[in-house]
Amino acid sequence: MRTLKLTLAYDGTRFVGWQRQLEGESVQGALEAALSDLEGVPVTAHGAGRTDAGVHALGQVASTVVTFRHDAGTIIRSLNAKLPGDITVVGVEEVPDGFHARFSATDKTYRYVIAHAALPSPFLSRFAWHVPGPLDRGAMEQAAAALVGTHDFAAFQSTGTEVATTVRTLTMSTVREAVADVGHGPSGSLLVYEVRGDGFLRHMVRAIVGTLVEAGRGQRPAGTMAELLRARSRRAAGPTAPAHGLCLVEVRYGRP
Amino acid sequence: MRTLKLTLAYDGTRFVGWQRQLEGESVQGALEAALSDLEGVPVTAHGAGRTDAGVHALGQVASTVVTFRHDAGTIIRSLNAKLPGDITVVGVEEVPDGFHARFSATDKTYRYVIAHAALPSPFLSRFAWHVPGPLDRGAMEQAAAALVGTHDFAAFQSTGTEVATTVRTLTMSTVREAVADVGHGPSGSLLVYEVRGDGFLRHMVRAIVGTLVEAGRGQRPAGTMAELLRARSRRAAGPTAPAHGLCLVEVRYGRP
Repeated sequence: MRTLKLTLAYDGTRFVGWQRQLEGESVQGALEAALSDLEGVPVTAHGAGRTDAGVHALGQVASTVVTFRHDAGTIIRSLNAKLPGDITVVGVEEVPDGFHARFSATDKTYRYVIAHAALPSPFLSRFAWHVPGPLDRGAMEQAAAALVGTHDFAAFQSTGTEVATTVRTLTMSTVREAVADVGHGPSGSLLVYEVRGDGFLRHMVRAIVGTLVEAGRGQRPAGTMAELLRARSRRAAGPTAPAHGLCLVEVRYGRP
Repeated sequence: MRTLKLTLAYDGTRFVGWQRQLEGESVQGALEAALSDLEGVPVTAHGAGRTDAGVHALGQVASTVVTFRHDAGTIIRSLNAKLPGDITVVGVEEVPDGFHARFSATDKTYRYVIAHAALPSPFLSRFAWHVPGPLDRGAMEQAAAALVGTHDFAAFQSTGTEVATTVRTLTMSTVREAVADVGHGPSGSLLVYEVRGDGFLRHMVRAIVGTLVEAGRGQRPAGTMAELLRARSRRAAGPTAPAHGLCLVEVRYGRP
């Protein structure tokens, strides 16, 4: 038996999310089908982050235990030949027994892309939330920075979920400007929210982004994030930003 | 009556192309439906370039004659509210009577994007042709440069089409490297072919790209493009590259 660590990129648009569901195509389901083909019997894969429907990944990590002996290059080629075009396995390595993509993870990095040109770009409609009108990047940057550190993030957790603790530690929370280009030319100016932490509550990044956009529009004073964290009330934070602007960029293991 | 010049961006993936067809959704059909809604009676729009199914645009131009008196901002907002998310009107201006998007055009610029990383990026699958394996950019650049000038491009025309002349003038034909990023992070290194000319034969850019890739792979000496042009034989050139890597970037009018 070998434990494999797989790194995946995907366009999450048409999936019900990472996790297998009773109905609809999931990334996990597609990956397990490809792995099972190689193994000859059904194989389970565990993901580091249970990305929601429409959420993308550049560096999702999955772990699986298999018996086949192919080398990494052959595994990558075989899986990609079986997987649909919107999922790509970009890396495979053998890891020690007991490695688990989710429980062994040290931290995760997400990016959320806001297209804030007046007009939406058709090239970005799958990958960015279009927020027309002026946004005060300085205010968003200030609000974002206030989240770095160890805090109770209950204000940014979707209602109806239960976890042992809502305390998480963020080591990065920044807003920067960028320009999108798929190669054909610039297609709109962006604001990119980048966040790294030891764990994230359900819809946490999207609730943070919805709140940052309110700060950017001047609907919420940028200096009130500490107060918002203390209040621990989901209703006091902003709306949940749509899924399609979000991407799981990197999952790290071991001491950061 | 006013003549309007409309500039459009679109993700061509799900369209049968620019031109109205008996079956399937066309960009022209969608634009005409939106214009007709504003006008109250059916309106025709003429496009500068009849992009094929799957071909994109950042700067397609359409002309139309209407009677409504809305200002440019209102027209842009109204049309975009009616158009599907993969088409955006990015500009509207009133132009002199007799302006025709196609016949008045001085030149057109296209870009063709080749993703040449070993693994395909799911973020680029709609916008770039994935050509794994090494490509000699110098050879491609040399072959591309040989096409600048006035030549008979019969070797790069799809068979079965009839035009008065197959002579066209290219003023730019270059290959450069680029990196794609929709905001979430780099998703693969690209080769971008950029070509500008006074007109293009059917599938001409895609046939050129198919030929340049052969040069990049060393399957065709880079110095033989002049010979290929002289031979005027479609079979002597390379295959037609797939539609989805191509984008109509700009159409210019008046003296360049």
